[in-house]
Amino acid sequence: MTTYQHILVALDFEKQSTLVANKARQLALQNEAKLSAIHVIEPLIESSYLAFDGTISTDLMPIQEELESSASAQLIKLAAGIDLAEENQFIKVGRPADTIHQLSEQLSCDLIVIGSHGRHGLGLLLGSTANAVLHGAKCDVLAVRVND
Amino acid sequence: MTTYQHILVALDFEKQSTLVANKARQLALQNEAKLSAIHVIEPLIESSYLAFDGTISTDLMPIQEELESSASAQLIKLAAGIDLAEENQFIKVGRPADTIHQLSEQLSCDLIVIGSHGRHGLGLLLGSTANAVLHGAKCDVLAVRVND
Repeated sequence: MTTYQHILVALDFEKQSTLVANKARQLALQNEAKLSAIHVIEPLIESSYLAFDGTISTDLMPIQEELESSASAQLIKLAAGIDLAEENQFIKVGRPADTIHQLSEQLSCDLIVIGSHGRHGLGLLLGSTANAVLHGAKCDVLAVRVND
Repeated sequence: MTTYQHILVALDFEKQSTLVANKARQLALQNEAKLSAIHVIEPLIESSYLAFDGTISTDLMPIQEELESSASAQLIKLAAGIDLAEENQFIKVGRPADTIHQLSEQLSCDLIVIGSHGRHGLGLLLGSTANAVLHGAKCDVLAVRVND
């Protein structure tokens, strides 16, 4: 009997992303589950940057594109380490938790794997991505403890 | 290769505890890991109930004992369903997240499994046990989605 059919791992490219990716892969193998990976880029171009006529007051477009292309390169590298085909790699722009929930529902994932710093105090008050993903997730969430 | 060696499942005896217990058991089997279970009873007897001379103003002791014995009976029943030996069942009195962290560290667990209601809004602001367990956990945390 397997517990999960489709696992989505959320990767932030911080130091211990490889650990998170490897645990997700291990669980996918144990469950004979499909594995997908997502990296979310927070948008540089928020509505606050828009001028009154709706145009962008500062040209952030090239920087945004640069970020996306750099993220793609990093995801491809990380995905290669866990034998993840390109069609199962997703780069999305948006608010991290919402974007992860959205893709997880689109793909009918039953487990989201995400790194968690386990911060106390201010970090807890401000909330973390792992915490935000936990709330509102329609499936199980595995928070993999990573050191700060 | 196995990912986890000792899994601690936190059970609250709500409707879907069996689901949470079964997922924990499944993961333990997949990882050839040891499995322990904890149920935390929040103390009825808080310091606010103490009279000025340090004695308890209302006799809550029998109620507290009744709660503990009822919890024991429920844990034994749930544990039987997942083949869990008595020495791996723990009933503790305290603040849920702190008590779960404490036992998890004492037992050197590397994964805590807990049910999560995934509540939004007020529930998120007030915090949930799953959220509190996630923060401050020194190991991985699997939040199993249960319906409200």
